[in-house]
Amino acid sequence: MLKHECQQVASQTLYETVAGRIAYLVEEGTLRPGERVPSIRSLSKQLGVSINTVKEAYSHLEDRRLIEARPQSGYYVRARLPDLPDEPVVDEPALRPTEVSLGKVYRMVMKDQLNPGLVPFGLAIPDPELLPIDKLNRMLSSASRRARTQAVSYALPPGSEKLRTQIARRALSCGCTFSPDEVLITSGCVEAVVLALRVLSRPGDTILVETPIYFNFLQQIEDLGLKTLEIPASSRDGISLDALGYALEHTQDRIAACLVISNFNNPLGGQVPDENKRRLVELLEQYQVPLIEDDIYGDLSFADKRPVVAKAYDRSGNVLLCSSFSKTLAPGYRVGWIAAGRYQEQIERAKMLANVATATPTQLAIAEFLSTGGYDHHLRTIRRVYARQVAQMADAIGRYFPVDTRVTRPLGGFILWVEMPQQISAMKLYEQARQVGITFAPGPLFSASGKYQNCIRLNAAFWRDEIDGAVATLGRLAQEQLR
Amino acid sequence: MLKHECQQVASQTLYETVAGRIAYLVEEGTLRPGERVPSIRSLSKQLGVSINTVKEAYSHLEDRRLIEARPQSGYYVRARLPDLPDEPVVDEPALRPTEVSLGKVYRMVMKDQLNPGLVPFGLAIPDPELLPIDKLNRMLSSASRRARTQAVSYALPPGSEKLRTQIARRALSCGCTFSPDEVLITSGCVEAVVLALRVLSRPGDTILVETPIYFNFLQQIEDLGLKTLEIPASSRDGISLDALGYALEHTQDRIAACLVISNFNNPLGGQVPDENKRRLVELLEQYQVPLIEDDIYGDLSFADKRPVVAKAYDRSGNVLLCSSFSKTLAPGYRVGWIAAGRYQEQIERAKMLANVATATPTQLAIAEFLSTGGYDHHLRTIRRVYARQVAQMADAIGRYFPVDTRVTRPLGGFILWVEMPQQISAMKLYEQARQVGITFAPGPLFSASGKYQNCIRLNAAFWRDEIDGAVATLGRLAQEQLR
Repeated sequence: MLKHECQQVASQTLYETVAGRIAYLVEEGTLRPGERVPSIRSLSKQLGVSINTVKEAYSHLEDRRLIEARPQSGYYVRARLPDLPDEPVVDEPALRPTEVSLGKVYRMVMKDQLNPGLVPFGLAIPDPELLPIDKLNRMLSSASRRARTQAVSYALPPGSEKLRTQIARRALSCGCTFSPDEVLITSGCVEAVVLALRVLSRPGDTILVETPIYFNFLQQIEDLGLKTLEIPASSRDGISLDALGYALEHTQDRIAACLVISNFNNPLGGQVPDENKRRLVELLEQYQVPLIEDDIYGDLSFADKRPVVAKAYDRSGNVLLCSSFSKTLAPGYRVGWIAAGRYQEQIERAKMLANVATATPTQLAIAEFLSTGGYDHHLRTIRRVYARQVAQMADAIGRYFPVDTRVTRPLGGFILWVEMPQQISAMKLYEQARQVGITFAPGPLFSASGKYQNCIRLNAAFWRDEIDGAVATLGRLAQEQLR
Repeated sequence: MLKHECQQVASQTLYETVAGRIAYLVEEGTLRPGERVPSIRSLSKQLGVSINTVKEAYSHLEDRRLIEARPQSGYYVRARLPDLPDEPVVDEPALRPTEVSLGKVYRMVMKDQLNPGLVPFGLAIPDPELLPIDKLNRMLSSASRRARTQAVSYALPPGSEKLRTQIARRALSCGCTFSPDEVLITSGCVEAVVLALRVLSRPGDTILVETPIYFNFLQQIEDLGLKTLEIPASSRDGISLDALGYALEHTQDRIAACLVISNFNNPLGGQVPDENKRRLVELLEQYQVPLIEDDIYGDLSFADKRPVVAKAYDRSGNVLLCSSFSKTLAPGYRVGWIAAGRYQEQIERAKMLANVATATPTQLAIAEFLSTGGYDHHLRTIRRVYARQVAQMADAIGRYFPVDTRVTRPLGGFILWVEMPQQISAMKLYEQARQVGITFAPGPLFSASGKYQNCIRLNAAFWRDEIDGAVATLGRLAQEQLR
């Protein structure tokens, strides 16, 4: 039976399938908090898999805080589980496009990041301790010396061929088959998305976005003189296809593009089912609205295999897939890319106009890392750490925040979206938290229409047990607002 | 008397003053082609300066192709001189703003650059042989390893403090006193100019530009939905202040900014007199029109000391000074900067929105080079080479191109602007030249209003005596068009 399941879920490894079955039993209540889970030996026999596979599965479930080992006694369902808050629900759609003006808050959150005195729950940046710093810096050095003249010369668009070849190869695991020529290197993923927005739109146009949406995108949309139409999204299903279809049918405005983060969405952290991705691509194709897909978190799946992208279902070149290595390797290297389908030539021109080219040495270093640096091994390591940290932080939120607080259960990435009781003001909490040395991203940043006043986004990448106290402080401040 | 002159021209070194006097005698016809110039010893006595100073002055004049040494005989005014074509004259002003649409030619010239089979007279890029490649790549390596975590992390705007400090220090030689906080690092000078244009304008606005103007700027202006108003400029005086004043007074359109390259203008190569810079700044201040000043060639003065920038006369923060290290150190590092006066905060926000930050390792490497790499020594070397190459290429143009061809005599940088007889089509020449393996930038790219049909811009940075043949080919093709 297990073998059969494995064939069905071809994207999973054996230990994940085993872990998934235990998790299912826990989540459905068959195994209840505090109960003992089957011993490694017995489960190994029962399922006909090796001892090591079960060990690996249990270790994974420990990381996810679903079970815990007790010395000389075996594995148990964690008692904390019932305290874990529910997932936030998403709002109803609003069909009127809104102009954005949250610039001041945005700049404050960005500035906070430069302040080393603050606990950094704010920007969604990875923990440098989890980046392969020394190896990357070594490769930066060796690749530049080897390339010599090339390293100081322009890597004119589309950018380093070696890097584009590596990206095209890896795209297979996203369900895409590109040639290197279909990839353009950008200075990070944000630049890729901005170039796409600029090429596709004219001032006054409307961009369909998920809500909540990564605040940088909202700022960009404002900056380009565009409007947003916020389509509700859930962490489980992604952008609501019903609401999207309704908006496409009924909106009076000229819609220039639809912008989504399909895997481990910022801020919701969910993973859109493949079927929804396919339907999303088809729906937009039908209305001739280009899809800008941001997959920057795709490689940070808590499962061992990363999910496919919506672009995998693109038959007409209508999807512009954007990503980068800023979450997995080196944000400071500023190396991202876009596979822009039928808009590739326009994007290439826009890139040249924006800054001629992306820096060459960092392209060479990333190319080297992808080809010989053990990127997959590195990903396996950090995925597991982030899975654990996200669970630990969610656990702490459950312990310290007011009753009725809800939190996402991300399947990848390292951020959490927290919905506190209605009476709590995220902006007030933000001000109070900064005064005691903590920064985070307040919910109102994630909407152009005044939503999420009682929500906050927390970065779990820097989680340490010592930081538990900072979550406790946030929880206490939130509790005080209720009084 | 010489001492007195030196005090007057405080920006010149002694040998430059000596060279200037001989050049004056040559240019005014006191010393005529083929005539012997005073011996080193006699001039040294006559002027009361050292033998070495005169030697250095003569060496400089040789580089500029004004004099030549004949073995066992002394120095002579070069016979070629009378063949050197005149400077091009500039057109009359046109007061109607024009929309730009030269995208196709622009892309072709950019693409040509990737073709190693073409003689590269096209883009204005420096000769990699003249870049301190190994030293830079070493510093890239050492600075990144030393900074370790910092090297892979965001250098969020305003960017690396170490680099901004170095830039602020060097700004003294441009006549400016900045604090490091007044400088924002960008991904090259083009990005700095684009950010300035974007922050200052709304679609439909007009930008006042010099004509001819660097074609990338025209493309950017088109891309932003802006119009240009072309103000005539000469290589000697820069943008015509009379025409500019007239335009400011009479144009109906909303003028968002004025954009100039004040030192060694691309394509004219001239150096605007300080007095004109002061008047330009005051005039624009009076009309409350911000000045975007591009100084990317400023460090490549053929004199030993670089000229000041217009920003030196800015009292109100109305000037946005843009530059980079792409012409002097490493185009591929993509490190530029902007000192945006009272627009600094807005530009900083625009930078974050465009691509979050500039790559960190290349910032660290350039900072290291500026502080310990001997940048001034490096500049002295390449200035002399470019001065010689520019003169040699101009000389070849004089030999091979049709009678009545005019060419600029740049005082810095490495490009030449060539005006051929009216009947010759630069676009036709461009097509023919590509077929025989030569690329250049055709004149029409440098105007939005159809000017410069008979002009071309040539890059002298790659000059070698062997390339003389390519100039001969261009000349022959041009001659053929006349038949």
